[in-house]
This record gives sequence, C-alpha cells and structure tokens, in this order.
Amino acid sequence: MNKTFTEDEIRNTLLEMGERAKLAAHRLSTMTTSEKNDCLRAMADALEAESANLKKENAKDLELGRKAGLSPAMLDRLALTDKIIKSMASGLREVAELEDPVGKELGSWIRPNELDIHKVSVPIGVIAIIYESRPNVTADATGLCLKAGNAVILRGGKEAINSNIALAHCLTRAGLAMGLPDGAVQLIPWTDRAAVNLMLKMDKYIDLVMPRGGESLIRTVVENSTIPVIKHYKGICHVYVDSEADINMALRIIENAKCQRPGVCNAAETLLIHKDISAKFAPKIAALLKKCGVEMRGDSEFRKLIPDARAATEEDWTTEYLDLIISIRIVPTLDAAIEHINFYGSKHSDAIVTENRSSAKRFLNEVDSAAVYHNASTRFTDGGEFGMGAEIGISTDKIHARGPMGLVELTSYKYIIYGNGQCRK
Amino acid sequence: MNKTFTEDEIRNTLLEMGERAKLAAHRLSTMTTSEKNDCLRAMADALEAESANLKKENAKDLELGRKAGLSPAMLDRLALTDKIIKSMASGLREVAELEDPVGKELGSWIRPNELDIHKVSVPIGVIAIIYESRPNVTADATGLCLKAGNAVILRGGKEAINSNIALAHCLTRAGLAMGLPDGAVQLIPWTDRAAVNLMLKMDKYIDLVMPRGGESLIRTVVENSTIPVIKHYKGICHVYVDSEADINMALRIIENAKCQRPGVCNAAETLLIHKDISAKFAPKIAALLKKCGVEMRGDSEFRKLIPDARAATEEDWTTEYLDLIISIRIVPTLDAAIEHINFYGSKHSDAIVTENRSSAKRFLNEVDSAAVYHNASTRFTDGGEFGMGAEIGISTDKIHARGPMGLVELTSYKYIIYGNGQCRK
Repeated sequence: MNKTFTEDEIRNTLLEMGERAKLAAHRLSTMTTSEKNDCLRAMADALEAESANLKKENAKDLELGRKAGLSPAMLDRLALTDKIIKSMASGLREVAELEDPVGKELGSWIRPNELDIHKVSVPIGVIAIIYESRPNVTADATGLCLKAGNAVILRGGKEAINSNIALAHCLTRAGLAMGLPDGAVQLIPWTDRAAVNLMLKMDKYIDLVMPRGGESLIRTVVENSTIPVIKHYKGICHVYVDSEADINMALRIIENAKCQRPGVCNAAETLLIHKDISAKFAPKIAALLKKCGVEMRGDSEFRKLIPDARAATEEDWTTEYLDLIISIRIVPTLDAAIEHINFYGSKHSDAIVTENRSSAKRFLNEVDSAAVYHNASTRFTDGGEFGMGAEIGISTDKIHARGPMGLVELTSYKYIIYGNGQCRK
Repeated sequence: MNKTFTEDEIRNTLLEMGERAKLAAHRLSTMTTSEKNDCLRAMADALEAESANLKKENAKDLELGRKAGLSPAMLDRLALTDKIIKSMASGLREVAELEDPVGKELGSWIRPNELDIHKVSVPIGVIAIIYESRPNVTADATGLCLKAGNAVILRGGKEAINSNIALAHCLTRAGLAMGLPDGAVQLIPWTDRAAVNLMLKMDKYIDLVMPRGGESLIRTVVENSTIPVIKHYKGICHVYVDSEADINMALRIIENAKCQRPGVCNAAETLLIHKDISAKFAPKIAALLKKCGVEMRGDSEFRKLIPDARAATEEDWTTEYLDLIISIRIVPTLDAAIEHINFYGSKHSDAIVTENRSSAKRFLNEVDSAAVYHNASTRFTDGGEFGMGAEIGISTDKIHARGPMGLVELTSYKYIIYGNGQCRK
C-alpha cells in the first residue's frame, strides 16, 4: 500500500482525517446517551452479521503472517474466530449498558459576586489509539471512545491490516446508518512508522494519543508526539511477604500473582521476603514455585536458603518476564522493601502480605504505584475487576489517569459559568 | 556560567538533581499538613528577612538587563521591589492556609469478592517548572508544589538568574531548617536551551513539566519533552453578542473583557456580533472602543457599518494581541459564532451575551473551551476568582487539568485495596 503514496499525499490524507475527526467530535459531544447507545448496538449487530467477511479478511492476515513466520502465539492473537467476534459484539453491547460519563456535574459553587460556576464532564475530543496485533482492539477501543463522546483515529499493526480495515468499515457503516457523525471512527491505512510520526504531530486535531503495545512502540510514540500521551510502559509488580505474614495466605497470593496468567501486566515479577520470616518461608515458596514450573532468580541471601535458585542479576529487578520466571530478594526491613519497589518498579501494582496493620499502612501509603494491595493478589488491577465495566488500558503515568482507565478516564471537563453582567474589578 | 561546564557535567548534575528530587518527593508525600505549612511560613519569613540581599541580587539582573536593552516593561516585570517581596511572602502564607489536597478519599467501594477499594489523592511527584522573566514565580510555584507534596525543579529565564538563585537559596535554607527534605526545591543554574532539553528527557525522575511563557518556549518544550507537559498556548478569548443580548450589558462586558487589563490571557481578542443586532449595536460599541483607545479590525460586514475600522485579515482571528486591539466579525447565526470560536479559538475562555436561555445553553455546551460564560466577562478565568485560593497556571489542554490549576490539579491519585487473601479466578 505504501508504495503508491508519496509522503505529501499521506500527510494530506492524515490532515483531512484529523479535520473530519475534529468536526465529528463536535457533533458527538452533543449526542444523547441513547443516540450513542443505538450506534453501539448497531455496530455489535453488524459485527455478528458480517462475521463471514471479517473472517475472510482475517484469513488473508493469517496467511501473510504464516508466510512471514509469525509464532503460533502471535498467530493466535491475530485470529478472528467466531468466539472473538461474538465477544467484541457483546463488549459493545456492554458498553451501551454502562452509565454515560459525559455531562456529569463534578462540582458547583456560587462566588461572592454571584457568578455561578459549574464544573461539568465533557468528552476529551479526538483520541488516537496506536496498537499492535490484536484486531479486537479495533472494536473495543471504538466502543469506549464513542460512549465517552470522543472521535477515534485507529492505527493498528501491519499484521492485522486487512482485519482492521474490514472491522473499521463494518463498524463505521453500521454507525453511520444510526446517525454516527462522519469521521467519528477512522482507521489509518498505513502501518509504517513514518505515517505514525506524521500523525503524532497533529496536535491541532488530536487531543490525546494512547499507545498500546510493547515498550519500544511506546517509547517511539513518547519521543515523537507533540500530542499528550497516556501510556503503560510495563508491569514490574511485586509481592512483599512481611515478617508478620500469614504464610499460607502468602503462598496462595504468590501462586496466583505469578502463575494464574503470567503473560499479563499485573502478574508478579518480583518477590520480596522479610529476613525474619525467610528461613521458614523460603523452602515452602521454593517448593510451590518448583511445582508450578516457575524459574527462580534469587539474590545471594535467598540462594543461601535455596541453593538451586539461579543468581539474579541487576537487570532481573527491572525485567518484565511475562513468563514463568520470578526474581526473589530477601530484604532486611519494610523500608528496604518500599525502597526496592519505588526504585525498580514500574508504578503499576504491588502487594504486601502481613497481619500487621501498621506495616500495611506504611506500605500502602509509601509505595508509589497505581494500585497497592494489602493481602490480595496484584492480578486484580483491571477495569472489570475494579468494577469500571470495561477498560481501554492501564496507565502507569501520574497525569490525568492512573491505573485502569474506564469511561470516566476518557473524559475531560469544562467550567460553565452563569452571570448577570459581572465584570472584573 | 555555561562556559565552565561540559555537556557531560551538565547532564550528570541534572541527573543528580533528578535523583535527589525523586527521593525528596517520597519524603514529601509522607509529611503532615502542619509540617508542610511550617516550611511554607518559614519560607515567607525568610523572604522578608532577607529582602535586602534579594534586592541586591536583583539589582545585578536589572543592570545586566538595562545593558542588554530590555524594554521598560520587561525591566518592570524583572524588578523585585519591597512590595513584590511582601506579596511573595503573603502568597506563601496564604498557601499555608489552604486545605491540603493530599490524602483525600475520592471514592471507595467494596467489590462482590470483598476487595475494599479506596481511590485516594496523592502528590504527582516531581514537577519541573520552566518560566521566563518574572522572579516571583520562583516563590509562587514552590509554595504550591510543596503544599501538594511535590518536589519542584525550577528553571527560570536568564534575565532573572541572579534573583532566582538568591530566591531559591533563601527558600531552601528556610525550608531545610523546618524539616523540608533535601532536594525538595532545586533551581537549575543553566539558562540555555541545551540544559532544558537534557532535563526534558529525564522522564525517569520528573513526572510533569509545566512551561510558563510565550508560545515559542512552550512549543519547544512540547517538541522536546518525553515527560508529560501541561501547557497554556494562548488566550484567544471571544465575546459573542447574540441577537437577543441586553445591549448595555454587552457594552459593559466587552469594555471589561478588552480594556480592564489587555495584556493578560483571559482578555478578549475577538468580538462576534449577531447580524440581527449589528446595525443597532455596531455604532455603540465602536464609539465605546474608540473612547477607550481600542483599535478595531473588522470583517467586511462590520466595516459596512463602521467604515473607519481597519480590515481584519485571516491572521487576526488567531492573534493574541495582548494589547488595545480587537478583531470584530458579524456572524449570521449562533451556529456560525460557535463554529468560529471552535475553529479559531484557543480553548481558553469565551462568553455569550444574551437574554435567551436556550441560545446560552447551546453556546455553553458546544463551545469547546475551558471556561464558557453566560452574561459575564471572560476576565474571571483565574484560580483566585474561581475560589481556588491560588493558581499555578491555566491549562488549555484537555488532559489532567483544564482551565485554572490550583492545588487539587497538582495531585494524582492511587488505588489502595484491602483484601483478606483474595486471588483472581
């Protein structure tokens, strides 16, 4: 596709997409909840009705992927099965059921000069989503952005381009028939970095960029964007077993945090053990991890207790394994545990296991992460588990949104001020 | 100063400052309100006690500025008088009186699995402030950042470098004596762009950058920063006089919005007049603006009514005059007014003057700006006027904070989750 377009043509097309998105965002901001929900439900129906065509286009991507030597895991993520199409459709219907986050009064007050100030939630405007292979993001992100009144510009990975074009057409056609403004959902047909870099300078039209993918993609977006970015670098999540931990609870939580689904961002990567409990605890956790097939990489103190653990390097403390591997360190104090997490962690999700409430309180207050847990698995950091209904991603930033991002996090606010002729003195 | 340091030395010093700031931020996040207030009051006392020295250092900057040919207006902004030192001190004391924005419970709920989730406000962490000539920002920004529990890295303009170094020393010394952590307030002693650009890549240590100054400074920061930026590009504020406006109120509001202090961002730059009221209204507003010494730049319809107005060019609609100049356009409809503002405006502050509530409602909902006014002057967009107590700036972004930013906007949040051994299924 790239061969037939010059850079100027690509730039002009992108600018036109930006303009159309901005106009659509204005219309979207005035749509009623039921108008938006009608669009979402029509989109869900269309996905199911057109599943044969979606699978046909997806088969092209799978075929190209096989030829390009994609791993079975990557091909699996790329595949649009009936089950996945069904789940995209139900995702859209669920978003239609969620409360509209726009138009909420977040606060109001009357000033001594009688100015009547109302702080009201509004859509952000135009949101660009940059993502990698999973084509279901095309539907999921579209649904959440629209429900929050935002226009969306999608840029998926090259492996899924045929699937994504088919999905975007299907969603757009169904939406337009129900009154969705033209330009509310647009997919960029170019998947090279040059086109992304052009888009990342379009701060006149795009209000927010959300990259979803590996650290290198996110780093590139951050380095090139003049548009605000909300990002998720990685999840280096810790479980800290305090000297006053309930040992059986600690074992259960570590098994869950590490093994229940090791490939996701809220899985644990590092285990910290207080030295006063380590002699008792280390053999038990080592046996359990061995049973679960988890490779241990321990510091020297841990290896004194469990000699067959591999030695952890400095790099291990900042590695997101996304696999059945765990780094383990014995710490002398609660303070050392907090310091380790704040230094090596990624501000994502960290847990303390302890029966001592004041140790828990210090950990929860002082660990600088989006989600901090007392006596629970880190695996709960998720929009659904938090009761947000759905999530568009998890932020490891501290600006705008932190942790799981649902519909509320896809809104901004404005001040509406009623006067009776007030002038400033 | 720059001559004696290599780029590597500057980089290493900046990285060290970043590390110290990050450690300080951890300590600051655990300080009590009264500990922070004691620091703020000691800083205020120190500014007054050391005013002779501050003025002596400021005299160096003024002398250099005179030699460099700075305009009287710029020298005026640079000057540290007794009155300005007093006002910095009372600013710090007022911030001490404000409610602590940290540690507020923003929401809490219990999930069906008994996880007890609390969303709690926390400091952002390390904030870098990049500003131009006014040295009072050194004290004002420090006070607000500290009260919200943030460490601050200050980078002022080269014209004020001696004043800023003296101010930062004075504030730091006073703070340290009251238990402020080392590294909580730091000033970068280099004022060239190369040092700023190095700092703008320190996303490992700095959580937020706030540039304050002209559009070119802000553009440079946005283009070079890998740290999130909250910015204020400019204030192209509009007053729209609807066909059903109270004419006398409209005259008063325009005079106030344009003339009361034309050099500030919330002053009006463009006047839009509905065509149905223009024949009656144009002569009156022209007479008033002439009386106030305001230059008019009108579109062709306005100049049919007021031939001695200069012709507005396309550029006028996006120019922030910050001066006694106003651009004027006759619009055929309320929709055309909204469209003009959303296209040419800067998402800052815009007002409608009308007695028709449904026209007002449409304007307030559809104009995409931080503050939208019905029958009041745009000049009220200000942290003090909004009742926030103080402001660190005004955001024209839609991410994190919009409009005036007070203490609350200098915080983030975290999720604290209490469990009893929960594991994910």
